Amino acid sequence: MSVERILDPRLRDRVVSAEQAAAFIQPGETVAMSGFTGSGYPKAVPLALAQRIEDVHAAGQPFQIKLMTGASTAPELDGALAKVDAIAMRMPFQTDPDARKRINEGKLDYIDIHLSHVAQHVWFGFYGDIDTAVIEVSAIREDGSLVPSTSVGNNKTWLDLAKKVIIEVNEWQPADIEGMHDIYYGTALPPHRKPIPLIHANDRIGQTTLNVDPDKIVAVVRTNGPDRNSPFKPIDEDSRQIAGYLIEFLKHEVAKGRLPANLLPLQSGVGNIPNAVLAGLAESGLRGLTSFTEVIQDGMLDLLKSGVLDYASCTGFALSPEANEEFKRNIKFYRERIIMRTQEISNHPELVRRLGCIGMNGMIEVDLYGNVNSTHVMGSRIMNGIGGSGDFTRNGFLSTFLSPSTAKGGSISAIVPMVSHVDHTEHDVSIIVTEQGLADLRGLPPRARARQVIDNCAHPDYRDQLNDYFDRACRDSYGKHTPHLLPEALSWHQRYIDTGTMKA
Amino acid sequence: MSVERILDPRLRDRVVSAEQAAAFIQPGETVAMSGFTGSGYPKAVPLALAQRIEDVHAAGQPFQIKLMTGASTAPELDGALAKVDAIAMRMPFQTDPDARKRINEGKLDYIDIHLSHVAQHVWFGFYGDIDTAVIEVSAIREDGSLVPSTSVGNNKTWLDLAKKVIIEVNEWQPADIEGMHDIYYGTALPPHRKPIPLIHANDRIGQTTLNVDPDKIVAVVRTNGPDRNSPFKPIDEDSRQIAGYLIEFLKHEVAKGRLPANLLPLQSGVGNIPNAVLAGLAESGLRGLTSFTEVIQDGMLDLLKSGVLDYASCTGFALSPEANEEFKRNIKFYRERIIMRTQEISNHPELVRRLGCIGMNGMIEVDLYGNVNSTHVMGSRIMNGIGGSGDFTRNGFLSTFLSPSTAKGGSISAIVPMVSHVDHTEHDVSIIVTEQGLADLRGLPPRARARQVIDNCAHPDYRDQLNDYFDRACRDSYGKHTPHLLPEALSWHQRYIDTGTMKA
Repeated sequence: MSVERILDPRLRDRVVSAEQAAAFIQPGETVAMSGFTGSGYPKAVPLALAQRIEDVHAAGQPFQIKLMTGASTAPELDGALAKVDAIAMRMPFQTDPDARKRINEGKLDYIDIHLSHVAQHVWFGFYGDIDTAVIEVSAIREDGSLVPSTSVGNNKTWLDLAKKVIIEVNEWQPADIEGMHDIYYGTALPPHRKPIPLIHANDRIGQTTLNVDPDKIVAVVRTNGPDRNSPFKPIDEDSRQIAGYLIEFLKHEVAKGRLPANLLPLQSGVGNIPNAVLAGLAESGLRGLTSFTEVIQDGMLDLLKSGVLDYASCTGFALSPEANEEFKRNIKFYRERIIMRTQEISNHPELVRRLGCIGMNGMIEVDLYGNVNSTHVMGSRIMNGIGGSGDFTRNGFLSTFLSPSTAKGGSISAIVPMVSHVDHTEHDVSIIVTEQGLADLRGLPPRARARQVIDNCAHPDYRDQLNDYFDRACRDSYGKHTPHLLPEALSWHQRYIDTGTMKA
Repeated sequence: MSVERILDPRLRDRVVSAEQAAAFIQPGETVAMSGFTGSGYPKAVPLALAQRIEDVHAAGQPFQIKLMTGASTAPELDGALAKVDAIAMRMPFQTDPDARKRINEGKLDYIDIHLSHVAQHVWFGFYGDIDTAVIEVSAIREDGSLVPSTSVGNNKTWLDLAKKVIIEVNEWQPADIEGMHDIYYGTALPPHRKPIPLIHANDRIGQTTLNVDPDKIVAVVRTNGPDRNSPFKPIDEDSRQIAGYLIEFLKHEVAKGRLPANLLPLQSGVGNIPNAVLAGLAESGLRGLTSFTEVIQDGMLDLLKSGVLDYASCTGFALSPEANEEFKRNIKFYRERIIMRTQEISNHPELVRRLGCIGMNGMIEVDLYGNVNSTHVMGSRIMNGIGGSGDFTRNGFLSTFLSPSTAKGGSISAIVPMVSHVDHTEHDVSIIVTEQGLADLRGLPPRARARQVIDNCAHPDYRDQLNDYFDRACRDSYGKHTPHLLPEALSWHQRYIDTGTMKA
């Protein structure tokens, strides 16, 4: 393997194997790694660390770390470390089945926070010191500055704060990604903060590389491995209908003069439904769209390629294998239209509010009054985490939540009397869309919201049950502002636990 | 009564009685009035309107309006109109007993939203047109510009958007209040928004008066009446202890280097406990404090007078009669140290995050995992509303919630297994303080938060009951990430409804 991606001679001397690099990490350390939704995470050191920890455990010794990242990673990182019980504490987001299992068994402590809060809370000292940073980059320049790879996440913060740094240089990443990033070094701690000078989603306000004190770099590891590259499912009928209702609504808002003809910068969560929305936008007749979001997935590349989307700002990618090939093949095209930022910028409340983003996120369930549960199955089991959905929901122009009206073959209703966990409050949620229709909750008092949600979004199989609850609540509730029957409010969830269905 | 406060000759000609002014308001109108926490609300027209509506109702005719303000007002506005069933919809905040009663009977629709969202959501068109604005000012200048009185709230937005405007000129307000206000006209709708150029809580970024198109002014009414001026209760032992724990914590954070020696700009909710905290700060030894808050109450004036607080930014006042006399007597002193802003600025997420405010707000209840209910008694009855607490909780440096550990003589625990309504999620709440102690939830996973809240904050009468629930939930919950027993999670609230106490 060539070392042409490592141009700083000081750092060429520190190239070691993944195993040698992993040996720098000690039990009990707080380790901060790169990675955001399966892009730009270290490919080799976490696997080597997992092997080392497994060996130590086999010898009867304890070895766990506290693990921070940008967001979710991949089986080679979260999965490998979770499987060997290497993680004592995980922050701020994950989607790994092995980690999830341990979290829900009470064996792995998980702290699920807004992605815009991560960097600042670590800077504030709320999470103690960072011992080691493990960061994937695409190259090291002559002066020791780092060319990021396919995610930025919290890498700037990890590199600034970590006592020692391990760099992975991944030659699988396209060399021409250089120049795509915009790393803003103008953040500070209060009382020294200044306005962030970003006015359009494609403004460049920073530099293309990450700074790091070379004296802190204890190891450089060369890798050549792909990002996670999960395929998306083909767009199903439910997703197509949800996308249709949402796009019809957005066009209606344009017609009413409440949105510009090219909308406002779009934020899109990751998954099959958001991907269907992006596909729907391609055929919508809308033009000149922009995006200020966390993650670019397949549909966003298509919109850029077809010219429907002018540009996009993000902090990471979630691409299928095919889309990844397309991205790498036409990197020079995409480099002109995509700007990658730190997640403190991509999700910053100041910027989301200024730009007036349109948030589009999935959900687990919503209740009659518009409270949304994004994180907990039946109130106690974590699914993934809140991620950046709260940053966009609270601060954007519009917050929309998209979900099929039922799950698990109809045994779970996504519309419930009371959500079993609240991630987005009634004060924050504007629009709910299911394959049944769209509920516009803007400017409505609680009982009028309930009518919208039941009539427009609930599955017919659950509509009578919801009406029955709501009617009796309106009659018998302690207060009639937000009517509830407390002994029944969470009974649908308990019924599912007990019987396998929410149906009465 | 002299007209020396009305210097624009065009508007002197429009001086009419309150009854004549109220006659401009038609049934079904959306009426936007001034007023924020009992300061700066119109004193005469709402009373005249209430009388007119009562007469119309007595004649068997319908007459209701939709009513928007800055925040809560006073008996002469919310109370008078609620009593005669004049309000069909109320937004965004109220604290009036007559309005509350009707809301909880299901007779008055109330929309309870973040105070930072109000102006922009009306600008976005989410609430339709504003027919009439009724705004109290302290004077009208020669050029027709308006000198605000003791609150600014949403007055700029109401004056800009209303089709017709009624001005009340209140000579009870000190003439020397002129110059205290800072009205920022730089806001815009996306995609035209720019950074707000405020870096310190005492920066001036606007003008001292409100603009209005004089052609829209249909009536000017002269008044001479006091703001609400509710007295505060003497500081009780619980409040003193809560204040003590919070201040001890803040000094600890200074000692640890996580806060500057003069802290960061303080936001303080309204009430007896926040007032006790302010009194505690006076004796804390801390100096050079600053405030970026919604409301200035008695304790804040004391801190300014004693020099502990350098300056304060607000959008309204909540003063006792004595404090109001002090304020009027020494208006020239306070005018140099207090800046009054529109509530879109006082509560703006961009600014709250940039300044790193320390939020201090009351609550109704908190649960084991740090979810806070600020609005609903037993899940369905509105108390007041979320007000600006969410703006500061989500975006500030620290969010603290303060409450006695019990209410109603011990029959209600403020620490419950699951809150009956969520206004501030587990992702947003940092610090809980009761007279029992302080729970620091920063950087903790859910079960560790539960231990902190039970051990440090719960009343001893409820601690065993909470431990029993938590222990069984940790054993039997469907998931162990956020353990809950759904059939019991809200049983404390139902027990209170059924038996008058949460005690088992």
